[in-house]
Amino acid sequence: MTARTRRRSRNGAARMPQPGFGQRRRPYVPVEVLSADQVAAIHQAGIDILARFGMRVLDGAARALYRDAGGEVADDVVRLDPGLVAEHLCTVPKRFTLHARNPAHDVTVGGDVCVYTSVGGPAYVMDNDRGRRDGTFAEMCDYMRLVQVLNVIHQEGGGPFEPMDLPAHTRHLDIYHAQIGLLDKTWQGQTLGRARTMDGIEMAAIALGTTPEGLAERPALVGVINTNSPLQLDVPMAEGLIAMAEHGQALAITPFTLAGAMAPVTLAGALAQQHAEALAGIVLTQIVRPGAPVLYGGFTSNVDMRSGSPAFGTPEYVKAAQASGQLARHVGVPFRSSNVTAANEVDAQAAYESQMALWGALMGGAHLLEHGAGWLHGGLTASFEKLILDAELLMMMDAYFSPIDTSPEALALDAIREAGPGGHFFGTAHTMERYETAFHAPLLSNWDSYPTWLERGGIDARTRANAVWKALLSEYEEPALDPAVAEALDAYVSRRKEAGGAPMN
Amino acid sequence: MTARTRRRSRNGAARMPQPGFGQRRRPYVPVEVLSADQVAAIHQAGIDILARFGMRVLDGAARALYRDAGGEVADDVVRLDPGLVAEHLCTVPKRFTLHARNPAHDVTVGGDVCVYTSVGGPAYVMDNDRGRRDGTFAEMCDYMRLVQVLNVIHQEGGGPFEPMDLPAHTRHLDIYHAQIGLLDKTWQGQTLGRARTMDGIEMAAIALGTTPEGLAERPALVGVINTNSPLQLDVPMAEGLIAMAEHGQALAITPFTLAGAMAPVTLAGALAQQHAEALAGIVLTQIVRPGAPVLYGGFTSNVDMRSGSPAFGTPEYVKAAQASGQLARHVGVPFRSSNVTAANEVDAQAAYESQMALWGALMGGAHLLEHGAGWLHGGLTASFEKLILDAELLMMMDAYFSPIDTSPEALALDAIREAGPGGHFFGTAHTMERYETAFHAPLLSNWDSYPTWLERGGIDARTRANAVWKALLSEYEEPALDPAVAEALDAYVSRRKEAGGAPMN
Repeated sequence: MTARTRRRSRNGAARMPQPGFGQRRRPYVPVEVLSADQVAAIHQAGIDILARFGMRVLDGAARALYRDAGGEVADDVVRLDPGLVAEHLCTVPKRFTLHARNPAHDVTVGGDVCVYTSVGGPAYVMDNDRGRRDGTFAEMCDYMRLVQVLNVIHQEGGGPFEPMDLPAHTRHLDIYHAQIGLLDKTWQGQTLGRARTMDGIEMAAIALGTTPEGLAERPALVGVINTNSPLQLDVPMAEGLIAMAEHGQALAITPFTLAGAMAPVTLAGALAQQHAEALAGIVLTQIVRPGAPVLYGGFTSNVDMRSGSPAFGTPEYVKAAQASGQLARHVGVPFRSSNVTAANEVDAQAAYESQMALWGALMGGAHLLEHGAGWLHGGLTASFEKLILDAELLMMMDAYFSPIDTSPEALALDAIREAGPGGHFFGTAHTMERYETAFHAPLLSNWDSYPTWLERGGIDARTRANAVWKALLSEYEEPALDPAVAEALDAYVSRRKEAGGAPMN
Repeated sequence: MTARTRRRSRNGAARMPQPGFGQRRRPYVPVEVLSADQVAAIHQAGIDILARFGMRVLDGAARALYRDAGGEVADDVVRLDPGLVAEHLCTVPKRFTLHARNPAHDVTVGGDVCVYTSVGGPAYVMDNDRGRRDGTFAEMCDYMRLVQVLNVIHQEGGGPFEPMDLPAHTRHLDIYHAQIGLLDKTWQGQTLGRARTMDGIEMAAIALGTTPEGLAERPALVGVINTNSPLQLDVPMAEGLIAMAEHGQALAITPFTLAGAMAPVTLAGALAQQHAEALAGIVLTQIVRPGAPVLYGGFTSNVDMRSGSPAFGTPEYVKAAQASGQLARHVGVPFRSSNVTAANEVDAQAAYESQMALWGALMGGAHLLEHGAGWLHGGLTASFEKLILDAELLMMMDAYFSPIDTSPEALALDAIREAGPGGHFFGTAHTMERYETAFHAPLLSNWDSYPTWLERGGIDARTRANAVWKALLSEYEEPALDPAVAEALDAYVSRRKEAGGAPMN
């Protein structure tokens, strides 16, 4: 257990209990839902799909890259033979570091640790006070401040929601600016088209005191590439992929394979298709720049067969996540999964779907947890209260990953003898020496007796979460930024805004 | 996936979606949070505790049984040497069947399956309509009717709450009567003192058309024995244990080892103490009747160190549950765990604590899940809405345990080719043949889009659960009971009530 951060803020108010920043090692073997034979069968099906059916690649530059590397291109369809795929999987790094402007917040991708991110990409924002609505830049900044304050979140996930009060062409510049200024953690870039992608790379380079080319030696960014399932890669995503890979920035290649809609209704079929699409993207990153950091994204879920709408955090989602972890390990690529729910409120359903998704992801061996905190409404909404709920769930998983100490002192035979039959352990020396850090200290859970809880207002978890984020927001302190860096960022943003920003894709 | 039960009830109303009754095989290896060396160290600590410190056994008959078997008795303390413990562990059955009055509802304890029970023992009842209150017999019967209707619950857990409108001395007789009459599933007996225990055995024998002696050949009941941690076994529990074991009925020996209160603040210490207490009870069952069915109960959790009140479904609870599973397998005894929460409402906290507990129990290899559905307030309250929430969680875990099919048909290469790049799988033959049973159909989850959900009233999970239990209650049909058996039960209960029932312990 890491030492807790100081319990009082500068103004003397009690701070919320939080362990310090850091990735915890998962000391347990990932759950395997597939046998080795089954993994091989799904892998082979993915390989067959790429060799026989191919991917439709809408971007000419991407098709040219595949063709020059030995892919078979016919019209807009690219077929990849198994040897070509295997060759390019060899250059994928098993482990890499992402650099933050505060080196204490650097993170490792790979091995037995996971990067927990905040939600990225929703259209809307929601809180208990005002319900769901279009978000503003000011609110987005508050959300980012919370991501900075929450130690359990390692990485900002790419802008929590759209700041609709800003012009669309230049909005990404303001988001990047906020990601760099308000946080000193790693953050995710936008990959929709080359212009947006390059702005992120340029600004990340400025923040780290280097150039876009220099950034390749110190990767800082993660970008998510979604294929247009089934078996299609569109132009903006291909441009984003190529720009990021050229500059050695990390990509999470994530097919959106909803079983029953954009993928077969069978999990094995959806996973085979996911595997093909993920491999196609991973291969392209290695064609662009051998050794470029990349992750295998697993996002397979199922639709509600009554309505066709996507469901998340389902039993099928959990199996698909853990199976995806096995497939990613089979091809030797770090694994990205997510914390997802289709719930409409921060209620029991939001908690159990997210909790299921987390067990799927974290015990599936995920190295990057996308949307780790804050996602609601199947990804359409970033919720302030869900951010707190998820932070609690993540802190609980971290505490679960703290291994049981079985040293003689921990086995406590002396304490047991001292307490004696029918005695108790309150206030004994063994207890007093350890009680402050023995157990997970909750951010959100309330363990009052029912009468006490009623006396104190009978406040449910959804309402408590509202108070928690407001308390955390008051703890926020903006991390200092080198004035020269700040000035260079301001200049970059001004110049790019004057030039009109990025085209809409 | 088991065929779903018919979707319309006799009166033509649509039934709630439920898979049929049945225990699902867990096809995945249990999670191991301890190394083999750590398991051995905790086991040895437990053995040392029994050999060196011993258990205080307040019941003279129990002490005599231990002494006659070779235990060392000094005053009220019983010490057991390692050889004696090992010898009695040899006779514990690894697997046994519990018999219901409907043989289709018999359950297996042991192997790769688990028995899911309903909550047993709370003082209070609660629902959304009337809040928490003392329960009545009529309400208790409704709760049992729901336990009968919910296919995912395999066993009634010993009376969901106290029917406070009935006299205390004879209340257990009415509860047994309801358990037998309203359900045709297995049920749990009360083990507080010999009289209550024997009444359960007598009535179970009548229900199965046999005698108390004959019941030993067809075990029907489970009884829970809680030690008074630390290291103490009281008179009523010892009497219950002896009576049940004499008649070959199953016991779950469950120390209540709350780390930081009745057990050391360290998990390893709490587990060592739990192990000692559980082994002491298990050994006593085998002294009474070699081969008597018995389970190793793991209930170790932690207290809230601010208030001293118990916490449940915590990360420490999960680790303790999975470690307990390893300890139970180490000694070759079936494992009992629980679905627990300290939440005060059926909110996000209730869901995430129960979900954590379930992952601990079910991926810890539990064979009996006590309080599988309905427990709230740290076990003080049985909630109607929590029953539904937990049934959903259990159905999700069952669906998670349905293995991924990787047959060529499931890999679906033809369907993927047919859909083609950018196509979709709605309405394809591959989808149409499978969609009805492809995915978990939820009882409680709502996957409407947010605007649709708002239009339909914006009803959260807690409120939906209320509607679900009312709909299920309307589906209930009382299972037919042989009139001769019914008459014999009536006569037994009348006779025992006239005799004054059972003494209060």
